[in-house]
Parts: sequence; C-alpha cells; structure tokens
Amino acid sequence: MTYCVALKLNAGMVFASDSRTNAGIDQISSFKKMRTFVNAGDRAIVILSSGNLSITQNAVNRLEHYGRNPAVRNVWNAESLFDVAQLLGECLREVREHDGQFLQQSNVDCNANFIVGGQIQNERQRLFLVYSEGNFIEASDETPYFQTGETKYGKPIIDRVIKPDTALIDAVKCILVSFDSTMRSNLSVGLPIDLACYKHSSFCLDLQQHITQDDPYFSQISRRWSEGLRGVFASLPNPDWLTEIHDSDPIPPS
Amino acid sequence: MTYCVALKLNAGMVFASDSRTNAGIDQISSFKKMRTFVNAGDRAIVILSSGNLSITQNAVNRLEHYGRNPAVRNVWNAESLFDVAQLLGECLREVREHDGQFLQQSNVDCNANFIVGGQIQNERQRLFLVYSEGNFIEASDETPYFQTGETKYGKPIIDRVIKPDTALIDAVKCILVSFDSTMRSNLSVGLPIDLACYKHSSFCLDLQQHITQDDPYFSQISRRWSEGLRGVFASLPNPDWLTEIHDSDPIPPS
Repeated sequence: MTYCVALKLNAGMVFASDSRTNAGIDQISSFKKMRTFVNAGDRAIVILSSGNLSITQNAVNRLEHYGRNPAVRNVWNAESLFDVAQLLGECLREVREHDGQFLQQSNVDCNANFIVGGQIQNERQRLFLVYSEGNFIEASDETPYFQTGETKYGKPIIDRVIKPDTALIDAVKCILVSFDSTMRSNLSVGLPIDLACYKHSSFCLDLQQHITQDDPYFSQISRRWSEGLRGVFASLPNPDWLTEIHDSDPIPPS
Repeated sequence: MTYCVALKLNAGMVFASDSRTNAGIDQISSFKKMRTFVNAGDRAIVILSSGNLSITQNAVNRLEHYGRNPAVRNVWNAESLFDVAQLLGECLREVREHDGQFLQQSNVDCNANFIVGGQIQNERQRLFLVYSEGNFIEASDETPYFQTGETKYGKPIIDRVIKPDTALIDAVKCILVSFDSTMRSNLSVGLPIDLACYKHSSFCLDLQQHITQDDPYFSQISRRWSEGLRGVFASLPNPDWLTEIHDSDPIPPS
C-alpha cells in the first residue's frame, strides 16, 4: 500500500508520500514515490505515485525520457501544468499498453495513480489527480487536496484543518498528523516520509524533507497528538442516560 | 453502507449500529440493523447486520423462525453463543442458497456480515463475527472488538481508547466518537444510532438507546470532540526545519 497526499493552498503547496511498497506481506521494501522537476525561476513540479511500482516507475521514466527531447512537448517546455498531467497520463497509457496484458495474465493488479502539481511561469498553481486509465481531474477551491492509496485513516484531520487560507506550516503539521494516523492503522504504509513544500510563485522547491524513523520532530508530533486525543476524550461529558451504568459497582473481570 | 461495532470488555459489552441503507445514492432509507434476543436471567444476545439488506433480514428472520420450534436447537435453547453464531451462519447460507443465484444474475452484491455477541447462563461473554460465507471468528482479549461496514474512519479512536478494562461509560463515549468520525467522512452512514449496553453477567440488556438527529448529547459530543481536536492540533510544536517558511511574509492568495 501507499499513502500520498498533496494540498493546494493560497500560500503554496505541500506534497508528501510514504516509502513502503509491498508485493505480498512478506516482500516489503522502501521506494521513493516522489519525483520532482524543478527549473528554478521557471517551473517547480512534483509527482507522487501510487499503485503498481513497475507501472508508475516506467511511466515517470518515460516522462523524463521525453523531457530530454526539446523537439517534442515535454515536462520542461510545457506551458501549462494541464499539459504535464496530460503527458503523464499518456505515458501511463503507453506503459499499460506495453506491459498490461502480461501482468493481467498473472492476475497482477495494474492500478497506478499519480498526483501531479506545482506551478509553471505565467500560470497559477495547479494540482491534478491522474487515474489508472490516464484521465485526470483538477483540484478546486472546494476540495483543495488529493490523496491516493490508503486514504481513509488520514482524511478526517485534513477535512477538519485544511482550508485554502491555511498557513503552510500548519499544512505541514496536518500532513504529518495525517501520516501518523495512517501508519498507526495500516502497517503497509511506512516511514520514511518524503515531504516537499512549495511557496506560491517561488518557482523552486522551498523545502524538501526526508523524515525517517529517527526523526525527533515526527516522534514528538506523534506522541503529543496521541496524548492530546486521549485528553480530549477524557474531558468529554457523560450522558444522563448512562448514570445507572456509571454509578454501579465495578464488575470484576471474567 | 453501514457501520456496526461491538466491544467485549471486562465490565460488559457495547453494541452499536447506524440505520442508513442505500441502493444507489438516490435510494436511501432507514432500517434498524440491531436485533436483540433477551430472556432475562438466562440470556442476552445482540445481532448487528451489515451488507445486503434482504439477505441479512431473511437470515435473522430464519433464526427467529427456528426459535419458535423448541424441538430444534435454536437461539433460545442454545447452550453456547458459539452455537448461536453457527446457527446464524447456517441461516445465512440457506438464504444465499435460496436467493443468491437470482441476485447474481442482476450483479447484485450478496455480501452480508453479522456481529453476534452477548452471554448465555453458564458461559462467559462472547463475541463473534460471521462472514458472508457463514464461517465466523471470535473476538479475543488482544482484539476485544469487531466492526463491519465502513470501518476505517471510526477505527483509530477505538484503537487508542479501548482496552479490556475500559469502563462501560467510556466505551459508550468512544463508540459515539467513532460514529461521529464515520458519519462526518461517509455520507452513507447516518443517524439514528442504535446502542445497547450489556453489563457482565446481568443476563438482560441494561441500556438500549436510540440516538436520533435531535439528540442533544450526541451533538454535544460531536462539537466538543471537533473543538478538542482543533485545540490539540493548534498546540502542536513547529519543526525547526520549517522556520524559513514560517518567518517569511504571508503570501497573497492567487
């Protein structure tokens, strides 16, 4: 499994992905799922991938490959992030056409999703979700984020905290809490986390952080969040209709 | 969708189910998913159902039907909850055998799960999860709860709070927070919630509560939990490595 998330806020964008991949529970390894394309002053693009690793790696490699040929539209000369999302979708379709039937013969899941976002000169920040079939959608102000992979455990905190005007620092903290919740509940999502921060109209990546097992800040967030939740829970009032149960003598264990 | 959860604690058991059923998003209605079998002083059994409504209703109706015939092993004369789980699994198999092929012809999902728990005289409290195929597993001390349906959003709070020695009143609060998180993130899980509390060795249902939209306590829990989470989030420390982003001037919205 995988967990990837990206936010598009007024102040900038935050991207994060875990590093755990597994082919069966006895074959677990660590692969970076974030690829960045930065030409400082001109464009900063981040791609997060989830799904079948050979499919996603090959699709991004094709995107890089085309990027070396200035005669074709590519990730470095595209005038819009829309074009980049379309290119990536086409690369994904090429890989699936090339490899898909062989994987299907062995009943291997060909699913592959990408989140691609960033900013290109003369354009606003944009964020896209590319589906397995190569089609894609763009994030809106109403839903300024995309998740892929194991999305459910980490979604509630994002829904509660993230608004378009959330500060980047709060967005980063929210993402880390979101990862903490996900990793607590799904062992197939794991550290290290790759984190990238883009400040609006900076056209460079303002922060790239690789958060490992030993990261003291992540441990602190994880512990403080856990303690905080317990504290809030302990402070919740009791309902009237539970008085009987509450007032009765404690019952010995079975 | 559905959300059902049941806990087996030293002090007793807590059962809860939502009431929303849907056949497509334009056909949503409210059905009780909790059925209770209580013979005070002898047995208290609660069944929570999720999945295809016609399958689960018919299976429980068969269980009730057999219950009217004292000549056969049934829910009222079974000497063990293990037998009740087995009976329910057999009823489920009968219904699937009777109706399954017709549903499959129309590609209707035949999935159906049950949580069944409680206590019968001369036996400890027991809790079972009956799968669609009619086989079942029993809760252990390590995992003293079962969930069915939309389980993910409501699982983290249970994992953080529930231990075998958790008091019943805290367990009830935890279940309500778990439902609140689930209903916030999945519209297909909805009020009213049916809640039942069983005190260890009481052989009756000590509390049955039907929590509707207008329930002031549930609204209060929902609001206080939400405010509390925001408070904990706001109190989380900032990482050193984010100082640059934090110290910079705010960036105007795009």
